[in-house]
Amino acid sequence: MTNNKKYVYFFGYNNTDGEGWMRDLLGGKGAGLADMTKAGVPVPPGFTITTDVCRYYYENSKTLPCSLNTQMTAAILKLEDITTKKFGNPQNPLLLSVRSGARVSMPGMMDTILNLGLNDEVVEGLAKLMKNEWFAYDSYRRFIMMFSDVVLGISKDIFEKKFEEMKTNLNVKNDTDVDSANLKKLTNIFKNIVKDKQGQAFPQNTLTQLYMAKDAVLNSWNTTRAITYRKLNKIPEDIGTAVNVQAMVFGNMGNDCATGVGFTRNPSTGNKEFYGEYLINAQGEDVVAGVRTPYPIADLKTDMPEVFDKLKQITSSLENHYKDVQDFEFTVEKNNLYMLQTRSGKRTAKATIKIAVDMVNENLITKKEALLRVDAASLDQLLHPIIDPQEKISILANGLPASPGAVSGKVVFTSDDAVKARVNDEDSILVRLETCPDDIHGMDAAKGILTVRGGMTSHAAVVARGMGKCCVAGCDAISINSENETFTVGKVTIKKGEIITLDGATGNVIATAVKTVEPELSGEFATFMEWADEVRTLQVRANADIPKDAIVAKNFGAEGIGLCRTEHMFFEEDRIPIVQEMILANDLETRQACLDKLMPLQKKDFYGLFKEMNGYAVTIRLMDPPLHEFLPKREELMLEIAIGRTKNDDVTAKEIILKRVEELHEFNPMLGHRGCRLGITYPEITKMQAIALFSAACELIKEGKDIVPEVMIPLVGNVNELKNQKNIIDKVAHAVRKEYAVEMNYLVGTMIEVPRATITADKLAEVAEFFSFGTNDLTQMTYGFSRDDAAKFINHYIDKKIMNFDPFQTIDQDGVGQLIELATKKGKSIRSNIKLGICGEHGGDPESVKLCYRIGLDYVSCSPYRLPIARLAAAQAKLESK
Amino acid sequence: MTNNKKYVYFFGYNNTDGEGWMRDLLGGKGAGLADMTKAGVPVPPGFTITTDVCRYYYENSKTLPCSLNTQMTAAILKLEDITTKKFGNPQNPLLLSVRSGARVSMPGMMDTILNLGLNDEVVEGLAKLMKNEWFAYDSYRRFIMMFSDVVLGISKDIFEKKFEEMKTNLNVKNDTDVDSANLKKLTNIFKNIVKDKQGQAFPQNTLTQLYMAKDAVLNSWNTTRAITYRKLNKIPEDIGTAVNVQAMVFGNMGNDCATGVGFTRNPSTGNKEFYGEYLINAQGEDVVAGVRTPYPIADLKTDMPEVFDKLKQITSSLENHYKDVQDFEFTVEKNNLYMLQTRSGKRTAKATIKIAVDMVNENLITKKEALLRVDAASLDQLLHPIIDPQEKISILANGLPASPGAVSGKVVFTSDDAVKARVNDEDSILVRLETCPDDIHGMDAAKGILTVRGGMTSHAAVVARGMGKCCVAGCDAISINSENETFTVGKVTIKKGEIITLDGATGNVIATAVKTVEPELSGEFATFMEWADEVRTLQVRANADIPKDAIVAKNFGAEGIGLCRTEHMFFEEDRIPIVQEMILANDLETRQACLDKLMPLQKKDFYGLFKEMNGYAVTIRLMDPPLHEFLPKREELMLEIAIGRTKNDDVTAKEIILKRVEELHEFNPMLGHRGCRLGITYPEITKMQAIALFSAACELIKEGKDIVPEVMIPLVGNVNELKNQKNIIDKVAHAVRKEYAVEMNYLVGTMIEVPRATITADKLAEVAEFFSFGTNDLTQMTYGFSRDDAAKFINHYIDKKIMNFDPFQTIDQDGVGQLIELATKKGKSIRSNIKLGICGEHGGDPESVKLCYRIGLDYVSCSPYRLPIARLAAAQAKLESK
Repeated sequence: MTNNKKYVYFFGYNNTDGEGWMRDLLGGKGAGLADMTKAGVPVPPGFTITTDVCRYYYENSKTLPCSLNTQMTAAILKLEDITTKKFGNPQNPLLLSVRSGARVSMPGMMDTILNLGLNDEVVEGLAKLMKNEWFAYDSYRRFIMMFSDVVLGISKDIFEKKFEEMKTNLNVKNDTDVDSANLKKLTNIFKNIVKDKQGQAFPQNTLTQLYMAKDAVLNSWNTTRAITYRKLNKIPEDIGTAVNVQAMVFGNMGNDCATGVGFTRNPSTGNKEFYGEYLINAQGEDVVAGVRTPYPIADLKTDMPEVFDKLKQITSSLENHYKDVQDFEFTVEKNNLYMLQTRSGKRTAKATIKIAVDMVNENLITKKEALLRVDAASLDQLLHPIIDPQEKISILANGLPASPGAVSGKVVFTSDDAVKARVNDEDSILVRLETCPDDIHGMDAAKGILTVRGGMTSHAAVVARGMGKCCVAGCDAISINSENETFTVGKVTIKKGEIITLDGATGNVIATAVKTVEPELSGEFATFMEWADEVRTLQVRANADIPKDAIVAKNFGAEGIGLCRTEHMFFEEDRIPIVQEMILANDLETRQACLDKLMPLQKKDFYGLFKEMNGYAVTIRLMDPPLHEFLPKREELMLEIAIGRTKNDDVTAKEIILKRVEELHEFNPMLGHRGCRLGITYPEITKMQAIALFSAACELIKEGKDIVPEVMIPLVGNVNELKNQKNIIDKVAHAVRKEYAVEMNYLVGTMIEVPRATITADKLAEVAEFFSFGTNDLTQMTYGFSRDDAAKFINHYIDKKIMNFDPFQTIDQDGVGQLIELATKKGKSIRSNIKLGICGEHGGDPESVKLCYRIGLDYVSCSPYRLPIARLAAAQAKLESK
Repeated sequence: MTNNKKYVYFFGYNNTDGEGWMRDLLGGKGAGLADMTKAGVPVPPGFTITTDVCRYYYENSKTLPCSLNTQMTAAILKLEDITTKKFGNPQNPLLLSVRSGARVSMPGMMDTILNLGLNDEVVEGLAKLMKNEWFAYDSYRRFIMMFSDVVLGISKDIFEKKFEEMKTNLNVKNDTDVDSANLKKLTNIFKNIVKDKQGQAFPQNTLTQLYMAKDAVLNSWNTTRAITYRKLNKIPEDIGTAVNVQAMVFGNMGNDCATGVGFTRNPSTGNKEFYGEYLINAQGEDVVAGVRTPYPIADLKTDMPEVFDKLKQITSSLENHYKDVQDFEFTVEKNNLYMLQTRSGKRTAKATIKIAVDMVNENLITKKEALLRVDAASLDQLLHPIIDPQEKISILANGLPASPGAVSGKVVFTSDDAVKARVNDEDSILVRLETCPDDIHGMDAAKGILTVRGGMTSHAAVVARGMGKCCVAGCDAISINSENETFTVGKVTIKKGEIITLDGATGNVIATAVKTVEPELSGEFATFMEWADEVRTLQVRANADIPKDAIVAKNFGAEGIGLCRTEHMFFEEDRIPIVQEMILANDLETRQACLDKLMPLQKKDFYGLFKEMNGYAVTIRLMDPPLHEFLPKREELMLEIAIGRTKNDDVTAKEIILKRVEELHEFNPMLGHRGCRLGITYPEITKMQAIALFSAACELIKEGKDIVPEVMIPLVGNVNELKNQKNIIDKVAHAVRKEYAVEMNYLVGTMIEVPRATITADKLAEVAEFFSFGTNDLTQMTYGFSRDDAAKFINHYIDKKIMNFDPFQTIDQDGVGQLIELATKKGKSIRSNIKLGICGEHGGDPESVKLCYRIGLDYVSCSPYRLPIARLAAAQAKLESK
């Protein structure tokens, strides 16, 4: 850092250093103030301390660049010059506001200190100058309170309480009813509080006040709330905040004064209407503090017609200038309108879409701009029911927002009870320690799923997202008592059958029923998605296992099925006994007999799926999970047998199952006997699946349908695995084709989910006609993180800034991304037209979709409910690449 | 394959096409025959069908190149010309031998067919020509039997039985006592057997006989035994076998005839002595068949002095020519000596070393040649006791040869019983379903370990190898009944206290005590290892956790400790309760109190280790395993509580432990909360370990020792993990240095064992001063194979030729090797002097050691007992690279 670096940017009349585009350096607020000033908008003058200072501060153990004080002093002199007031001078005092302002608006940071520059002398001078002692002391008592709260860390409540006591003693109701003598007394009380709490008097030196306020802004960058906010919103840590110092204008000098906030369009609905609130004779914080009820902005037309027109004209032109909804603050000092801030208005996802589409129609922005303006991830809010924003809720516990949506239902603790509830037409919430594949039927039957354990990519989370079902996972505040069929959170106990509500968007669990609002996918939303589809070149497919899912997928815009997990067909209630019998079989003959029973069932599923997706690509993944997932749990069996024995029950049957479960037991099932390893050791399973899928395809081709199955072999790490399985598949295809006497084309490809597959992708491409990156497993193995276990430390890692994102949500570009890129290059080097896609959870994550586009994949596949996100992200990726 | 390719190479007098160096094409036997012929050694003429034919045969669905027949016919004509005999012509018949011969000698393949070319007519012609009907029919009955056995698949036993019956009926004892009339009868009986079994007469066309014999050789390449042998000996599948067709000479034409086999040096001890056996009036197979007892070759000096001298002279010159011990076959036909084969003699590991050292001393070979000639892996045989080769053993079961050595001891089923046995000075064998870290004290106390489950790199195998202790793992034929304290294999039950023997070299379990032989590491072995050390540049270190291991390591030539697993110190009996208390602690304070108790204990260990390794590098790995490994097993607790409850026992204490065990429970512990993830969530553990190790180092430095600790952070996948831990370590180092007021240098580095670490190695190298590749975990994650579970399918994979080696034994060059290379390049690009090593199990595997040399690592670290292997492999790598 050199001494001649510019750390302070002035704004005011003809002296504005900054520009509107300097958001990185000046923060959003600072850039806006500079921009407005340059555009001739009435803005009180001031200066911005750049974000460089904030970065310097944190990189240098909270010290500041040497030249900063000099530059600040110069800026104050200039400000005094322009305003013809003097900082700290009672004769004609300059008062200041101090505010934080990062590149993006960020709640949790220090907001505003007003009236800085007042002290015991200056307040008297101000009173004289303004001939208004009440105003001077009202300003001073506000300043002491704000400064103490924000800079000195003495809670505002202590001051408020004293003020309340005074009002009670005086028997008055409103702040404005307290006379100046009492306000003066109040400032003394306030100063005593400070002295008491601090051991030091309230700072009387106005420059000291300014320096302390500036430091407070810098420190507020690293409050827990600010850090959490950045983490949740993926805001980088190093953008830093600017500090804005601005000459005060006063909305509290009388009834020709006012202060207010507003939006150029309704931020909730997106409707084009002037929207906001104001108060007469008040300072900024009164509007938001809720002490006085502000008036709707329309009333300003009556109260101050000229000001109203000017405000409307200015804000409209600001909207035109920034081509976006403006969230503005203004103050009226003696009928003079001042704009204190303008920025892009935060809005709901719904409003975002509506406004973007409207602005395109108004020729304010292009379709491209509209597409780039919407945060793809935010679409998720529009695709599921949400809790009615009007509802007052009380949160029982908070878990991970594993799958969005909001549902109320009766608590059940077993999958069977969830099924019973559905039979009785009751909505249920399945509450489990964790879910396993045995619970699929229960998860399907329940309205929502709540688990105590597991992360964002635990079994419950992944399956729920796939089903588009609300899920709150890893809610470890809950403890389940399965014997009593209750769960407790602290002192609250919820019994089976009681109604709770899950909010999958926030992870909240609510102990009552709550009203929800359904999503609307037509209108502007549909128009917007059409625009996205016009732009994008990356295809989107859905992960769907059964015909029902395929219908949903098509509604959400799927251009094919990228992943059909065939084992999900095995978990259906009519099949699981056959599957279990197959697994328990001691010889090939018995096993084959079971497979023969499964074949027609699976064929029927494939028939339905292919038929539904006629003309689209459908990728069928051969059976993937380890066999023990289909059998009862080991510990449960052990316990049942042990307890059964003490009662002299006959436990022979269970012992037989346990024996097989023990044989199949694995220390690390994720790295165990699954995927193609099953198909290789039990070729008869691959064969059965191939017969089922090719027979279904041939039957449909005979019916005139256009079906080209893509057969996907999971967990390949070695080309010989692929050859082995392809050999079986090719033989079956040949035979089935002959049997049905039709022409059938098909592709055989592999999932790339084992790191070794990425490194040897050139060899795999000699055999595979397509690659589909299974980014869930690839992430697990590349990091050595079990997604079912990692939640325990990933959050800790994010807290400690060791990682700044969850790699199970967004593809890790530096690690996993490099492997995908490597595999893509190697694959294409051997087979230039190899089809490339991803089918992990990441297919519905905007950043990951963009990465896939940049790497050059052909498609992404994700849960049907995340397709709109993928479609928009794909369009944005294309636009950003230009 | 073109028609003009040469498939047949003739040898004989001045007509020899092949050369001694053509082993790949002609096989070892064929190249040897060509070479000997050219060198003027008396060899019956013949021709070799090349290995190309074998490869063609298997690549083209068992068809043969078109031109082969023509080339064979031409060769037979030439052979007829040279021998002045005619194939298939009774007047002066040419008889042939047919033998297989791959590049390397390979048991399990078809060995020899003698006397081919005999049929009902030719046998009569031969009898007339030789004026020896007995000889002719003795040859014919042998031929029918051999041909039927080898080519037609009719077991030799059936024929042998008939011959035995005849001899019984005739009341004679020796084959030679049966007269020619009866031999003639016998050939008819034999031919009837063939017709009976085959439905077809014994082939009378001699060309058909030859073609069938040739096909039989080709088919024998793929017998199960041959495949298994190649797999075990890592012989590539595609080298193929040659077929050698050679004019017969007869050792069975009378008492001036003989046949024998021999070695130029003793293949068992390596002593320089003429070694072998022979029979008078016999054909080759009689010597090995054991029907007649052959004479020691020394006796030939008396029986046939001239032949003996000539044989000695020829074989000596062959040894000089090939510069290696020769294993030869010869036949004496009417006092004429013919050499039928010469090849490098197979020998024991002990003999290999002795012969190599002797030959260097005899100036026959160079040290370099000596070093390259010894299979590094074979040294393992010399480093552990072996079963006395004289012992007759009966194998009860066979598991994986997880850790070499041979031990007998009393069966125990618990670690505590193993400890008790040691207290009573009894040798014990610990028999477990699988071992876990709880068993360390038992494994230490037992003489050998036998597990039912787990692969070559399971916990039992890894720990046993580290301890240099015999272990047979994954012996799934065994079923343990822990209640009765017995185990059974089939119908055999072994009770606690009964003595069994384990052979860790073969995986055999023997139900009795067996005599063993101790290894000898001085003499030629020591000389040989010195030569290896002179050559190699790659350093070797040992994996050692406690001072005792360090002593062993130094004896085996360690130049440092590459891996000290600090957690092994925690498993000591006096520490495990403190460790458990620490884990059960609910707050930092209690945890810290436990750590404070552990610190001095661990410091003492480090003190001992550093002191022992004074002047050498010692790499200390911070705690690695997940915490639940230190607590009782989950299922056991669950069962104990459930059963306790039925008895109304107080199970509160167990419930508390179970609660914590449940909290710590992981679905995939390998991918869970372990390695640096522990140190990050519990920084106090890292701090304690750093204090212990730096205090120990400083204390020793004060005592004048030369200690530079290398602190290794495990399981890093992200540079921020490394920064976090290095920060703690640096702070502690600073403080300890100050406290002891000494200069202490140290390095901080990381294990590279997560694939992401290899991809981001450039970033890691900004912080890490060394990398140590943890190839066990890196292999697990690169393949997605859990080493504890993969045994179930890896063997199947090797059987099905999907993999041709076990990646947990030898580094997978195409996958894991590429990642190591990538990480090495990336690491060096940032820090050119970064220290690089490996510390996985692979550090003691010759192929892997060579790969490490080629990639450019500085050292390998392995179990102390495998250091000689690593030292030799490192020397070989260097020599091979030149």
